[in-house]
Amino acid sequence: MPPALADIERYLHEHIPLSQKIGVTVAAADADGVRLCAPFLPNINHCNTAFGGSVSALATLAGWTLVYVRLRPMALHERIVIQRNAVEYLKPILGDFCVFCPSPPEQHWHRLIEMLTRRSIGRITLQADIFSDGAHVGTFEGVYVAHKST
Amino acid sequence: MPPALADIERYLHEHIPLSQKIGVTVAAADADGVRLCAPFLPNINHCNTAFGGSVSALATLAGWTLVYVRLRPMALHERIVIQRNAVEYLKPILGDFCVFCPSPPEQHWHRLIEMLTRRSIGRITLQADIFSDGAHVGTFEGVYVAHKST
Repeated sequence: MPPALADIERYLHEHIPLSQKIGVTVAAADADGVRLCAPFLPNINHCNTAFGGSVSALATLAGWTLVYVRLRPMALHERIVIQRNAVEYLKPILGDFCVFCPSPPEQHWHRLIEMLTRRSIGRITLQADIFSDGAHVGTFEGVYVAHKST
Repeated sequence: MPPALADIERYLHEHIPLSQKIGVTVAAADADGVRLCAPFLPNINHCNTAFGGSVSALATLAGWTLVYVRLRPMALHERIVIQRNAVEYLKPILGDFCVFCPSPPEQHWHRLIEMLTRRSIGRITLQADIFSDGAHVGTFEGVYVAHKST
């Protein structure tokens, strides 16, 4: 794993302890987007499929990580939190699963950074897809808010 | 805790291991609805507030438990899963938190049971509210599907 990905993974595990219990790994985090994965076993449910709460949490983290990775080099000292999210579970998940949160168009970032700089608060909507065993098994949409720390 | 609540809690912890990591407790589960709670510490995030993924998972379990508790005595041998959900995070959560999922009107249950009996599959939409330190801190809506096991 490139050092940058290991750093992000360590950050998540240290600051959001549930991410460690879920077994979150950072598979990619670059200009294209963020890909997080989780193993099946810690996340099973009563049907021996992946627990919806785990899937939703992984997707929430993927979006959060994308905003974090994008804003961090700008040293805006922001606090990023989720404001709302919606998840659709399309198929039962029978094994390890991943979420890919692609970077939205560049003007969405510009708007976020402009709002954040001018008003100390900005908002961005991200979509992500959930995959398992090569199949598209769910969708996620989350609205994230970044606050400039005072 | 009444034995029935302890039984439900044990069921959740055994069959959905992440519920144990979250520290889910069953505070109420009766005809009025289901109330689940979680301690702050295992669910903190980088801002020292409750992680949205934990909050969403607790609410998902509250709705699931309500359907489980309602259908179990009927011995329909159903499998209950979540199909989609939406969460709104209204305020930062700074301590332990609870979700109350009230029972919907009786005709919603009748429709679910009729669909399940006739077509072996039924659907029900539930709303829940999230509370912490006496404040209303979030809302949840989930669509649950019950499949009759063959």
